[in-house]
Amino acid sequence: MTHTWTTDPARLLRVDDGFALDRIDADGHPGFDGHKADGHRLLAEREERLDELQERLYADSHVGDGKDAVLLVLQAMDTAGKGGVVRHVVGRVDPQGIALAAFKAPTEEELAHDFLWRVEKQLPEPGMIGVFDRSHYEDVLIARVHALADPEEIERRYGAIVDFERRIVASGTRIVKVMLHISPDEQKDRLMQRLERPDKYWKYNPGDVDERLRWDDYMAAYQAVFERTSTPDAPWYVVPANRKWYARLAVQELLIDALEDIDPRWPAADFDVEAEKKRLAAT
Amino acid sequence: MTHTWTTDPARLLRVDDGFALDRIDADGHPGFDGHKADGHRLLAEREERLDELQERLYADSHVGDGKDAVLLVLQAMDTAGKGGVVRHVVGRVDPQGIALAAFKAPTEEELAHDFLWRVEKQLPEPGMIGVFDRSHYEDVLIARVHALADPEEIERRYGAIVDFERRIVASGTRIVKVMLHISPDEQKDRLMQRLERPDKYWKYNPGDVDERLRWDDYMAAYQAVFERTSTPDAPWYVVPANRKWYARLAVQELLIDALEDIDPRWPAADFDVEAEKKRLAAT
Repeated sequence: MTHTWTTDPARLLRVDDGFALDRIDADGHPGFDGHKADGHRLLAEREERLDELQERLYADSHVGDGKDAVLLVLQAMDTAGKGGVVRHVVGRVDPQGIALAAFKAPTEEELAHDFLWRVEKQLPEPGMIGVFDRSHYEDVLIARVHALADPEEIERRYGAIVDFERRIVASGTRIVKVMLHISPDEQKDRLMQRLERPDKYWKYNPGDVDERLRWDDYMAAYQAVFERTSTPDAPWYVVPANRKWYARLAVQELLIDALEDIDPRWPAADFDVEAEKKRLAAT
Repeated sequence: MTHTWTTDPARLLRVDDGFALDRIDADGHPGFDGHKADGHRLLAEREERLDELQERLYADSHVGDGKDAVLLVLQAMDTAGKGGVVRHVVGRVDPQGIALAAFKAPTEEELAHDFLWRVEKQLPEPGMIGVFDRSHYEDVLIARVHALADPEEIERRYGAIVDFERRIVASGTRIVKVMLHISPDEQKDRLMQRLERPDKYWKYNPGDVDERLRWDDYMAAYQAVFERTSTPDAPWYVVPANRKWYARLAVQELLIDALEDIDPRWPAADFDVEAEKKRLAAT
C-alpha cells in the first residue's frame, strides 16, 4: 500500500498566530508517517496530478479567459534544498508553464529603485507557475542581519510587502511562500560534502561560512518575517528540510493545493468541433 | 543489450550540399536500428550524460570563466512535436540552466524593429541552454508563404540570418538548428486526435487546417532556408519526426554532441579547500 498524507501539510505547516520557528523540528516529517522510499514513491505518484493541474492552468489562460497564476516563493539558508525543489518538484511539469526567477544581490540599477521594482517585473503571467529562488524577502532578511537598511526602512518594508502581495493575490495569483528549514548541523554536513567533491566545489562559497556564523540572527529575522508577513491571503509555510524527500513531497502538495483551489478547467472549444473534423478530413 | 546509435545522428541528419527535403522519409529512424521501447530506454539512459554536461556548462560559466552556451532552434509544421522535445528532452535537465523562448506572431513594437531585434534579446546567457520554440526562421517561412514581406526583403533576411548566427557562434554559443519533419498524413492524424479529446481542444486552432493546405509552399520555403542558411558554423538538422520517440532521441544526441564539443570542465576551487574545511569544522 502506498503511504499517503495523513493530514494536509498546508494545514500542518502553515504559519499562524503564535508560531515559533525555534519549536520546529527540522528533522520532522509532519503529516506523513512513511519512510524515505515511501516518500519517493508518493512524490512520483503525485507528479501526474500536479502535471494535469498545471496543464489545465496553462490551457485555461492561453486559449480560455483564465487570469490565475501561482507564485512559489522559496526562502532558506544555504544548502537547504531550494535547487532540489526546483529540479525535482517544479521541474517535473512542462517547462513551458514555468517561469523561474533567481534573485541575487541587487545591481546598481535595481538599488536605484524601490526594492519591489525588480520583483514586480518577474511576477508570473496568467497561466504560469512562477518560482522565486530567493525573493523580496531577502530585503528584510539579509538586509536586517547585515544592517543594509535602517530599522525604520525594514519596518516600512514589511508593510509594503503585505500590500504588494495583497494586490498580487487580488489579481488572481496564488502565492505559496515556503521556508525550507534545516538545522545548523545538517547545513554543516552539506557544506562539508561540497568541500569533499571537486564536482561540488562550484557550489561552495567561503561567504557561506560567514553567514552560518549569524545563524541565530537569521532565525530571528525569519521569525519577524513570519510575524509581520504571514497573512490569510499569503501565508508562510515552514517546511522541515533535513530530509530532502520530505521537503520535496511537502512543497509538491502545497502546489497541488494551490492549483486545486484555482480548479482550472479545460477550456471549451471556441470552434465547431464537428465542422472542423469534416474540414480536416477533406484535406 | 541496450540498442544504441549505430551512426552519430549529427552526421546523418545534417543538411549538406545537395540536400533535398522531399527525399527525407519522415517515418525513418536513421542511425538507430531499435524499436520504440529501445528508443525510450536509450533516451532514459542518455539523460544522465546530458544532465552532467549541462551542469558542467552552467558551473563553468557561473563560477568559472566559461563563455559558452547552447542554442537549440526548433522549427516544424504544427503538431510535429516541438513541445514534446522541450518537455521530454530539454525538460529532463535542471530547469535553472534552461532559457525557453517561444516566438509568436510579432507585436506592433516588434514589427517596428528589424526582425532580429526580438531574437537578439532572447539569446542564452553564458552557461545556459537556450531553446527557441519557433524563431527568426518564421520571418523567412510564414513570411514567404504568406507574402508578409517582399521577395527582396526575404532575400536580405537569409543573409542577415547567416551574419547574425556567425556572430553568435563567434561569441561562444553552439547553435543546433532542428527541423522536426512529419508527413502530411501524420499531421492529419495528430490534428484529428486533438478534435477527438476535449482535453486537447485547446491545442487545436482552425487556422492549422489553413496552413496545412499550404504544405507544399512550406516545404519549398524550408528547402530554401536549408540552402541559404545551413552553414558549417550553424548547420541545420532535419529530424524525421513521425516517430516521436526517434525525434526526441535524435535531438537529445544533437544536444549531447554540442555540449561535448564545448567539453565544459568542473571549475577549480577558487578558495583553499583544506583551509575551508577547517573553518567550517570549527563552526
